[in-house]
Amino acid sequence: MRERRLRSPIVTKTNTGNFFEDFRIGQELVHATPRTVTSGDVALYTALYGTRFAVQSSDAFAQALGLPRAPVDDLLVFHIVFGKTVPDISLNAVANLGYAECRFGTPVYPGDTLSTRSTVIGLRENSNRESGVVHVRSTGHNQHGDVVLDYVRWVMVRKRDSKAEIPVAVTPKLAPSVSAADLSVPAGLSLAAYDTALAGASHRWGDYAAGERIDHVDGMTIEEAEHMLATRLYQNTAKVHFDQRLAAGTRFGRRLIYGGHIISLARALSFNGLANAFRIAAINAGSHTNPTLAGDTIYAWSEVKEKAEIARRDDIGALRLRTVAVKNTTPAAFPDKAADGKADPSVVLDLDYWVLMPR
Amino acid sequence: MRERRLRSPIVTKTNTGNFFEDFRIGQELVHATPRTVTSGDVALYTALYGTRFAVQSSDAFAQALGLPRAPVDDLLVFHIVFGKTVPDISLNAVANLGYAECRFGTPVYPGDTLSTRSTVIGLRENSNRESGVVHVRSTGHNQHGDVVLDYVRWVMVRKRDSKAEIPVAVTPKLAPSVSAADLSVPAGLSLAAYDTALAGASHRWGDYAAGERIDHVDGMTIEEAEHMLATRLYQNTAKVHFDQRLAAGTRFGRRLIYGGHIISLARALSFNGLANAFRIAAINAGSHTNPTLAGDTIYAWSEVKEKAEIARRDDIGALRLRTVAVKNTTPAAFPDKAADGKADPSVVLDLDYWVLMPR
Amino acid sequence: MRERRLRSPIVTKTNTGNFFEDFRIGQELVHATPRTVTSGDVALYTALYGTRFAVQSSDAFAQALGLPRAPVDDLLVFHIVFGKTVPDISLNAVANLGYAECRFGTPVYPGDTLSTRSTVIGLRENSNRESGVVHVRSTGHNQHGDVVLDYVRWVMVRKRDSKAEIPVAVTPKLAPSVSAADLSVPAGLSLAAYDTALAGASHRWGDYAAGERIDHVDGMTIEEAEHMLATRLYQNTAKVHFDQRLAAGTRFGRRLIYGGHIISLARALSFNGLANAFRIAAINAGSHTNPTLAGDTIYAWSEVKEKAEIARRDDIGALRLRTVAVKNTTPAAFPDKAADGKADPSVVLDLDYWVLMPR
Repeated sequence: MRERRLRSPIVTKTNTGNFFEDFRIGQELVHATPRTVTSGDVALYTALYGTRFAVQSSDAFAQALGLPRAPVDDLLVFHIVFGKTVPDISLNAVANLGYAECRFGTPVYPGDTLSTRSTVIGLRENSNRESGVVHVRSTGHNQHGDVVLDYVRWVMVRKRDSKAEIPVAVTPKLAPSVSAADLSVPAGLSLAAYDTALAGASHRWGDYAAGERIDHVDGMTIEEAEHMLATRLYQNTAKVHFDQRLAAGTRFGRRLIYGGHIISLARALSFNGLANAFRIAAINAGSHTNPTLAGDTIYAWSEVKEKAEIARRDDIGALRLRTVAVKNTTPAAFPDKAADGKADPSVVLDLDYWVLMPR
Repeated sequence: MRERRLRSPIVTKTNTGNFFEDFRIGQELVHATPRTVTSGDVALYTALYGTRFAVQSSDAFAQALGLPRAPVDDLLVFHIVFGKTVPDISLNAVANLGYAECRFGTPVYPGDTLSTRSTVIGLRENSNRESGVVHVRSTGHNQHGDVVLDYVRWVMVRKRDSKAEIPVAVTPKLAPSVSAADLSVPAGLSLAAYDTALAGASHRWGDYAAGERIDHVDGMTIEEAEHMLATRLYQNTAKVHFDQRLAAGTRFGRRLIYGGHIISLARALSFNGLANAFRIAAINAGSHTNPTLAGDTIYAWSEVKEKAEIARRDDIGALRLRTVAVKNTTPAAFPDKAADGKADPSVVLDLDYWVLMPR
Repeated sequence: MRERRLRSPIVTKTNTGNFFEDFRIGQELVHATPRTVTSGDVALYTALYGTRFAVQSSDAFAQALGLPRAPVDDLLVFHIVFGKTVPDISLNAVANLGYAECRFGTPVYPGDTLSTRSTVIGLRENSNRESGVVHVRSTGHNQHGDVVLDYVRWVMVRKRDSKAEIPVAVTPKLAPSVSAADLSVPAGLSLAAYDTALAGASHRWGDYAAGERIDHVDGMTIEEAEHMLATRLYQNTAKVHFDQRLAAGTRFGRRLIYGGHIISLARALSFNGLANAFRIAAINAGSHTNPTLAGDTIYAWSEVKEKAEIARRDDIGALRLRTVAVKNTTPAAFPDKAADGKADPSVVLDLDYWVLMPR
């Protein structure tokens, strides 16, 4: 009965997404939909998160540093590149498990058109044979073919048919973090004229110390309309974010907020304490440790994990940060993992990443 | 007493809109407010509906087909052209009754300025003498005077004074549908390089058959903030969408959602099954069969009514579709009209239109 | 204990804002974050308020009047210039007390980059020694150094330490209103070709009389998502607008809406009666007489206070208006101050300003 429906024109015209047994090691996926990023997207991004990093906010500020104009926020690029992979990779996902080896490349400017391709690099069936873990390396390009973003993510995807045989079992070896030597500095960028007064804080790379923790203080309560506007802006089609009728039947009873929305909120909140962290150069790892729902108030704190020089640059340094977003509680107490490694119930995001800063 | 207030400067400065007896057959109305459409509007449109049609999403994709850049979504053009008519035509409307003969013309690009003019082509008083039906043909132009949209709509409009004599009774003869021969293909467009992988689905014009029905599967729950942002973006001033204090006294007790918001949602949802329907060429008819309120979850299904070739084009064909939007129920059962022709209570939109598709 | 925390790296990296004793007469503040205004901001502004003034809506309309393209709405400029001052001036504010001598200068166009500087011109400690009143003159510039906005505002700011000695007590003498002779008319502007039909109303400067009152009729209910999107768009970081967890402990129990959001709503509503008031030239005074919360429905009425000619211009005149915004009640009764000068509880804004109009 169900199989008959699968063969009807109704089902074949609609994208049902790939199931675990549809993936093959080495498979290349060309994702729809290419997307021209514009100053309209940038304005919406500002309205959604209140981001205030001067390089992305001001053409004049960016031009003083040798860039042609203000680049698009790194995370807006991430969300757009990521969103394209959803219909092919994670429409039948049970869980988004992690990110690794995420490097930002050529800056994106309004007018650039982004598209994404992925390669399947890992497949391992779960012992219950109901699902399996898929690793993909996804690469975002601009219209000139330059790489703007490159990352690995792994998701647990349902099988269509639990009896389907899965002949391979591959888990790729991933770097625990991106090496500082592999961080990309935008071509032409010089921080000689970087104006800390206009940027909003005097603290440069040299003022931060490994182990230092920063309470970002400010909080932001999320509304349903906001996270849905954001997620649609990224053309991310995951149903769980949009369909309250469907969500009513789940254990949360509510629409889940796209994890990337929390990453962007945490980054915007981190301005208060990290105002000169003007570019995200890489994401080493990230976990959405607890779900977020509309009505939650998000706060963040950060820890400096590591400092690195950038080869042949005395104007710029890199900080490896861990930013933790928490919900509905003060970040002043730095809620974190318990001794057993389990995240505190208030922790919704644990993000390990590299930022660039003026020296 | 009331008449005295009508003569006061207070009332004369404020636009009270036209009442039924203010219209004349042949009357020409120049509508305020000319509107430059920008990439900001396009970004908001994406954020409001999550639309993913590649031609409108990507400058690079559009340029590969011979267009100067990504055109503005056809329905965004519709809403902006339509919105301008509200203060003159439907401020005192009891009901929006229908659309016909709606043809999309020259594509609109960011930077174009749109304005609208209307001609009154029908007037028929209702037997109760409290209101009457006004037909107008409205035409949207760009800054060069090219027609971007041309359509007829009819609305039931209150009389200011039920005793006013209405000397005419005209109901225009309208085509039941736009002829496929009258559909406009954008100048310079060639679909030779149309990339179905980037567009998101392999199904071309030839893969669809008359009578075929498609369940678009996905659903979207609407928030108050979303439909108001949309309706204000279109500079549509109808009070029923914005004023909860006023709405509290109506039979719905709530703000009504602009019907065009549902058209755009249904179109965006229809991507899942109609990804290559890259342009709406005409709207033959449309009814908002039931009201929609915030909190409703919208789904859609479509039926292929007719297929038509386009003269002298072997790269492009037309599909006549009927897309039905439903609220708060699965579209898998294809809720529709009952035998008596009355729409199912879950049906909120019944739209008959032509789309263009690559062959 | 608390002082020790103030010296920790946690607190010093985070901006705690200036307290009353941190300000000095004559002190110059360079505010972060420079901001390039784009057509994306303009689209969001339209979506947030539904503004319909033709000069700001249409490049073609503006060009017919000699402008290079549609200028950015005056109040969007105000909010962006104002927003930059918040982290330095009013992060520790108890109350925003007033505005004066606010003049709009060179028009702002999409692509312009705005930044703000302020000078402290008044400091007077309150008798309880817990706080004091700070007057600042703030000036917004574009990337060429032209002044786009110049205004005085005064706020009551908490002291960090009530025992701190405040050696000065200065209250600047401020003009009760901007002189009509000081209003700036954009360079190159000529209203000869001003089209009142496209602008939406026939009433020119000569049609208004001092003392005349206009009920703007229409109402707009505000949602949480809307005012937060707006306030973040302006990069205004005042916590009271965003953090429901914090707000729950206040006497309102809710997030407060940024007063500027109400100014923009009232201005957009005032189109219905003042459609040709195409530019705000100055703000003489403004009070947010009662707080506004999400769910409130805003209406507005205006009174013509004064008419003024503009020197050497027979195409343009100035109206001094008082626009009063009210919540949750009809504006038809013109709710206003009681005999004792106290605002009616329904009045949320009382704005005294100059607009330019075609003659």
